[in-house]
Amino acid sequence: MSTDYEIKKTNKVKQLKLKATYNKKIVHEILDAGLVAYVAFSQDDGPVVVPMIYGRKNDTIFLHGARKARIIRLLEKTNRASLNVTLLDGIVFARSTFNSSMNYRSVTIFGPPKIVTDNKKKLLAMKIISEHTMPGRWSEVRDSHLNEIKMTGVIKLKIEDASAKISSGPIKDEDEDYKLPVWAGILPITTQTGSLQDDERLINNAQPSEKIKRLQNKKIC
Amino acid sequence: MSTDYEIKKTNKVKQLKLKATYNKKIVHEILDAGLVAYVAFSQDDGPVVVPMIYGRKNDTIFLHGARKARIIRLLEKTNRASLNVTLLDGIVFARSTFNSSMNYRSVTIFGPPKIVTDNKKKLLAMKIISEHTMPGRWSEVRDSHLNEIKMTGVIKLKIEDASAKISSGPIKDEDEDYKLPVWAGILPITTQTGSLQDDERLINNAQPSEKIKRLQNKKIC
Repeated sequence: MSTDYEIKKTNKVKQLKLKATYNKKIVHEILDAGLVAYVAFSQDDGPVVVPMIYGRKNDTIFLHGARKARIIRLLEKTNRASLNVTLLDGIVFARSTFNSSMNYRSVTIFGPPKIVTDNKKKLLAMKIISEHTMPGRWSEVRDSHLNEIKMTGVIKLKIEDASAKISSGPIKDEDEDYKLPVWAGILPITTQTGSLQDDERLINNAQPSEKIKRLQNKKIC
Repeated sequence: MSTDYEIKKTNKVKQLKLKATYNKKIVHEILDAGLVAYVAFSQDDGPVVVPMIYGRKNDTIFLHGARKARIIRLLEKTNRASLNVTLLDGIVFARSTFNSSMNYRSVTIFGPPKIVTDNKKKLLAMKIISEHTMPGRWSEVRDSHLNEIKMTGVIKLKIEDASAKISSGPIKDEDEDYKLPVWAGILPITTQTGSLQDDERLINNAQPSEKIKRLQNKKIC
């Protein structure tokens, strides 16, 4: 199996300031660190972009929504979608606005969305998405009811083309701007979890599991 | 001027679990709190989604990139784009995976992207984007050079249609699931800034301004 996604017209990164990579391991790492994917597809009157939670297994992304949701019905009908996951790392304050930018890690993929209809395969995809968003939770809650599986629309998106862009320091200013007595630097940005908040209707003094507790006060990306 | 965006087929929110709003003030507040917009448009072989920094003035979103960047050239040629900004607030651990979800605030807009060619208007748009991302910085750095303005591609996207979705607690479980002795609750998520990191090539012991210092260790959204 190739370690890289093929470079095609669609996914070729043309901006030279950025580190571009087609390496599967890096693409997968960024996808695995994100929580929300921005999914674009075309409908009759133009493109639409929708934030969705997701999960990945090998070269396939799984997305879900209500079976009757517009997004699921539209993805089902389309033969090509684009998906982006971006992790924001910081704001780069250069010595000019022109050279100021953001540090980030970003992945864009393209593929054909397919609806998953088989209940067993749907359940497996639902588990992959659940474990991506709430690791360890799947085995703590009751089994999904058949009608819940039926009411869930699951889309699988095979990664046909993919690229990652990584923008990281140091600051690159114009040679003459380094003589300016203006401050320059980076303001880091992180996305993190806080402390668990109990639902008001817990019974038997139910406590979160150790796995769930470990998700608290942690940098996600 | 209307306080709401018109409800059309394009922007009508159909999911009932969510609070949907077309109120301009709420749409603008979410746009103003975000840092990255996910912009979708159609190209020959299908839809593409690209993360971009942005700024807003009234009902117009400004986006920028290198003048020769593919995204700018493609946006210039298209007559409709969709843009989404999502602020993630938490992971909702319900008593079943079916009712588990995310808390978030999200805005989707649609409009016709137009390239801005007049240098004065471009500079104004560049200031709006800069002040959105790095408030206060514009007046601290040197003026933009004419060639920098020329090398920057600026797109204005008039908000024609817009909707906001707000998903917030409390957890809604099935009636019978409240009897289960399983923990349920919310794991809050925040995006925040850290401490400023000096560039290695500062001169004259240059310090960040008070305005920039105030951006540190703050919840963005």
